[in-house]
Amino acid sequence: MSMHFTGQLPLTPINRPERATIGHYSPNLTVTALGGGHGLYATLSALRLISGEITAVVTVADDGGSSGVIRQEMDVIPPGDLRMALAALCDDTDWGRTWRDTMQHRFHTSTENGDPGTLNNHALGNLLIVALWELLDDPVDGLAWAGALLGARGVVLPMSTTPMTISGTVLGSSEDGSLTRRQVTGQASLAKVAAAGRVSHIELSPPDAPATPQALDAIDAADWVILGPGSWYTSVLPHLLLAEQRDALVNTPAKRCLVMNLQPSTTETVGMTAAEHLNVLHYYAPQLRIDAIIADPTVVTDGHREEFCQAAEKLGATVVFSKVKDESRPNVHDPLRLAVAFSEAFDTVPA
Amino acid sequence: MSMHFTGQLPLTPINRPERATIGHYSPNLTVTALGGGHGLYATLSALRLISGEITAVVTVADDGGSSGVIRQEMDVIPPGDLRMALAALCDDTDWGRTWRDTMQHRFHTSTENGDPGTLNNHALGNLLIVALWELLDDPVDGLAWAGALLGARGVVLPMSTTPMTISGTVLGSSEDGSLTRRQVTGQASLAKVAAAGRVSHIELSPPDAPATPQALDAIDAADWVILGPGSWYTSVLPHLLLAEQRDALVNTPAKRCLVMNLQPSTTETVGMTAAEHLNVLHYYAPQLRIDAIIADPTVVTDGHREEFCQAAEKLGATVVFSKVKDESRPNVHDPLRLAVAFSEAFDTVPA
Repeated sequence: MSMHFTGQLPLTPINRPERATIGHYSPNLTVTALGGGHGLYATLSALRLISGEITAVVTVADDGGSSGVIRQEMDVIPPGDLRMALAALCDDTDWGRTWRDTMQHRFHTSTENGDPGTLNNHALGNLLIVALWELLDDPVDGLAWAGALLGARGVVLPMSTTPMTISGTVLGSSEDGSLTRRQVTGQASLAKVAAAGRVSHIELSPPDAPATPQALDAIDAADWVILGPGSWYTSVLPHLLLAEQRDALVNTPAKRCLVMNLQPSTTETVGMTAAEHLNVLHYYAPQLRIDAIIADPTVVTDGHREEFCQAAEKLGATVVFSKVKDESRPNVHDPLRLAVAFSEAFDTVPA
Repeated sequence: MSMHFTGQLPLTPINRPERATIGHYSPNLTVTALGGGHGLYATLSALRLISGEITAVVTVADDGGSSGVIRQEMDVIPPGDLRMALAALCDDTDWGRTWRDTMQHRFHTSTENGDPGTLNNHALGNLLIVALWELLDDPVDGLAWAGALLGARGVVLPMSTTPMTISGTVLGSSEDGSLTRRQVTGQASLAKVAAAGRVSHIELSPPDAPATPQALDAIDAADWVILGPGSWYTSVLPHLLLAEQRDALVNTPAKRCLVMNLQPSTTETVGMTAAEHLNVLHYYAPQLRIDAIIADPTVVTDGHREEFCQAAEKLGATVVFSKVKDESRPNVHDPLRLAVAFSEAFDTVPA
């Protein structure tokens, strides 16, 4: 990295030239994307190429890694997924990219005897966001300042400003073949234990946490609302477990688009087909209609295509099969391809 | 704190109006201030009111507090005093003040059983500066970016980019009255142990660490170079222990101004008179001439005035007695009064 500071301030959001309107980019297209972690990062990396008005709404139940340590020591919502969403939206200038890289920078520290240090694994941006929260005493304001630092091309909001815990039941089988049922609390544990069985009955605690009003407004005011991709039980479905937000999703005049994962069977969804992903979504929000579903053709193998299309139809959705996989990293959506798929979905189902 | 983000970007260094030239402010007055910690903060808070070209040069031997923990886990120079110097120079706008307060924000965290948390006592700005250093692999560049964030009205440099350790001998007396001699390594320990005796023979390790070239340039190009106030043995004198920098101070065509502490007898300088402070300075840099010395009248009590003026004369200095104490905080220099004293000193000894 050689980003020498020349003494002249680099371009900031203030003095950057107006963005050219290239290709599919619509300055007035208003999109609200719900998710968490890497899935939301992929969605936002694609949306920034086509939408001028982006709001990201992020889950707040993460309790692993750097965010987990922070939650153990401070009474705050987990900053990690919010940081990643902001990073995805950073201004595409030296200024925006340098502060993005600084926010994303993770410390690797150790003590004299080689053990991990107290600062090990923390992303600087997590600590910066928490400092802003403590200083400004308002999570939404703090994120707006972090966004201003990055020159973010959009707004990032937590689904709730109340720190939450996710729990669920993992169904498995014991050695003698009988059914086991294990209650698991905490997102990190759930994601891990889920590999040994099948998740059911996920719920958020506290059950009556309020949704973020600005997030509800953004869902209501959007042309399109996007769900997925992402860890199905810990990044996608939690958005349907918060009653106020589920209602907003059901009642918004916006069109709704669901992006399927590239690997239906992940740690959290071992053995589940793509169709079963849709059925689970329907189970947690029976009234929710979906207008378009984006799926990489490789996700739905030939024998399962009919089952998948039937499940999609039950949700009211048109399926857009589109190559969205990053060839070099088969678990990652390619931002350009996903942007094309969004454009296609948005054209197929006019808002 | 209610600094709500309105959606409009606040003024940044880019779009702020030109600073008005008020009172004693000279846009072309070039001043380089050497120090560390709260003393340098006071100097810079005053200088920003009168000088348009400020460079701060900061000691790099601190090993206590947040900086100490960071040094234990990462091979970096201590960021704390650099952060404070940047904070003193922040742009006087919502933008500058908010990022200053964020940089200065200190976490107070605890574990479940009430022990201090792993993040406790860290200032966010220390972590941000270290992240920039790791990312950009250049301490001077990293500080320039942190300064750009704050819209800093000046440049902050470390005296060396090599992490250093200060050590010294503390002379005391045992119970039977015989002289004791204790070798102490580390700035935090030295400052503490010094309270029990008198410090001598301080030195920096490694002894051959290079000075920061930009700091040497700033000393050479200044109209005025400022030393002090500050912890005499750990913030002021270390600037004379680095050979290259001492030579630059001796040889610069700039005028040199020394600011005395408000309390001659501190933990580090128990029982020392103001005159003895000057003699110690002379001991560590016999060739260094001082042009002006700023001292609050209360610092030199009547019985010691002659001794003080003689010691000043030996350095070649004119003494400017000026009321610089903050009445409400008698250990702190009042920025406005110190600015007036600087103006008076600069006028008394034309550059």
